[in-house]
Amino acid sequence: MSLPNARGVWAPALTPITTAGEPDTARFATHARWLLDHGCHGVAVFGTTSEATSFSIAQREAMLEGTIEAGIDPERLMVGTGACAVADAARLTAHAVDRGCPHVLTLPPFYYKGVSDDGLFRYYAGLIEAVGRGRFNLFLYHIPQISQIPISFDLVRRLQEAYPETMKGVKDSSGDAAHGIEMMRAFPDLEIFPGAEHLMLDGLRNGGAGCISAAANVNVPEIRAVFDAHASGEGDADALHARVVEIRKVIQTQPVIPGLKAIVADARKDPGWRHMMPPLVDLPDAAAADLVEGLKGIGFRVQL
Amino acid sequence: MSLPNARGVWAPALTPITTAGEPDTARFATHARWLLDHGCHGVAVFGTTSEATSFSIAQREAMLEGTIEAGIDPERLMVGTGACAVADAARLTAHAVDRGCPHVLTLPPFYYKGVSDDGLFRYYAGLIEAVGRGRFNLFLYHIPQISQIPISFDLVRRLQEAYPETMKGVKDSSGDAAHGIEMMRAFPDLEIFPGAEHLMLDGLRNGGAGCISAAANVNVPEIRAVFDAHASGEGDADALHARVVEIRKVIQTQPVIPGLKAIVADARKDPGWRHMMPPLVDLPDAAAADLVEGLKGIGFRVQL
Repeated sequence: MSLPNARGVWAPALTPITTAGEPDTARFATHARWLLDHGCHGVAVFGTTSEATSFSIAQREAMLEGTIEAGIDPERLMVGTGACAVADAARLTAHAVDRGCPHVLTLPPFYYKGVSDDGLFRYYAGLIEAVGRGRFNLFLYHIPQISQIPISFDLVRRLQEAYPETMKGVKDSSGDAAHGIEMMRAFPDLEIFPGAEHLMLDGLRNGGAGCISAAANVNVPEIRAVFDAHASGEGDADALHARVVEIRKVIQTQPVIPGLKAIVADARKDPGWRHMMPPLVDLPDAAAADLVEGLKGIGFRVQL
Repeated sequence: MSLPNARGVWAPALTPITTAGEPDTARFATHARWLLDHGCHGVAVFGTTSEATSFSIAQREAMLEGTIEAGIDPERLMVGTGACAVADAARLTAHAVDRGCPHVLTLPPFYYKGVSDDGLFRYYAGLIEAVGRGRFNLFLYHIPQISQIPISFDLVRRLQEAYPETMKGVKDSSGDAAHGIEMMRAFPDLEIFPGAEHLMLDGLRNGGAGCISAAANVNVPEIRAVFDAHASGEGDADALHARVVEIRKVIQTQPVIPGLKAIVADARKDPGWRHMMPPLVDLPDAAAADLVEGLKGIGFRVQL
């Protein structure tokens, strides 16, 4: 079996929720379709931006099934399967793989702190053995400011050596540009994705695979333009990059996840998009209005 | 319905695991029976010491059911029901309550960091509303060095005001003696448990409810003796406390959870007790031998 690579621009998709606090699959499928139609190579479901850990295993499985039933191509999904228990991560991964999703993005177990690489290796090895070597592409999720569990170069190397047919890449959401580029150089055979769009162009120039960035939920056309300009050598990639950075600066004036939901809610005239799962909270109305105004002020609007 | 209080000495029980990496219910029930027969007022299952987050929801439910079927009184169990998703915490809590367990100990959701008390209140309120007010005693789990999410006095007060029939106490595992005593004084109507046995006696003298301490897995008779000496006013509570502290110092020479498993494995001549779930790792043989020798050196042995 040959699995596709994941190179490109990915949106870690926001998860709209119903008033009952369930993932809203219908709204989600519409959003995923919009992302794919407007420049995303693929959609990463159940990452940090998706509030994945705030949903139960059953809710995550049901939403993935509903999204595929709604017509989203599973080959263009990268499924977040992280969990503290290897049994849960294995269940989520097998579920995604059985439904035709080739890529999974898996957090380290994140309850215990200061754990050893031996323990993390055993965790990921257990996951791969449970689901099956070569049945999926595993991307490790390095987001130490939230998970508190960094993914070390040594761990990546050990997994690559033991499971070369499965261990395919890393999402580096550390926000540390130098760290990402160091990883791209150290692992030229892996797909290393910066977790932010403003690090994409420099990454591509150093062997990076693209980006998996929250902002893509609202400005994927602009991010894709940078990717394409780099790939084709046509157009001014740096100027397009500068525009992406300008948009990012406004997005970052508010907490990013509720802020992005507020931008989508405004663009779609659908206030139901605003809601967050606990422990995160909705962006207050005034902050949401400021954010929307700020984007207008730089001439940005979501290209519905 | 009137629920019992939880005052006393609780062991957050170690979870033995099978070679297949499943919770070993038979070994666990034997251990829980030993704890209850040797001085524990009750057994806290699925806390940090239990490696709770390393097991799936289904594994946790199956082990609880098996433990009760093995004859352990559910009224003497305090069930850890923490999870990042409120749906999972509600499922685990309802499962425990339906099986006759009056007490649950619930971590805050621990993936996102720097979350607001509003978000945490919404999380716990959602849990209580989902399971039913007054159907169980909720104990909040303050263990900021691991969860990274402190339980603030304000949050405790808001929950106590909104849900007085449910919000019953806090396990303070911060290790900060002053913090625990401050909380006991601020909330005289709640049961505040230090998460360590060496803080119990001072706690009892300041209105504390006892302790929920990992060390009780091996030295509950000694800890219970302190509790009883304080309660009866007979015997030398401070001398008994000093012995508990002496034992603790040796236990702390190694990582506590695998160390306690190694002590139980040695006492029961059952090396299978040594195994840890990833991401934690077994204590190396030499360290286990040192630990056992250290305890022998102070004349301590597990009272099988």
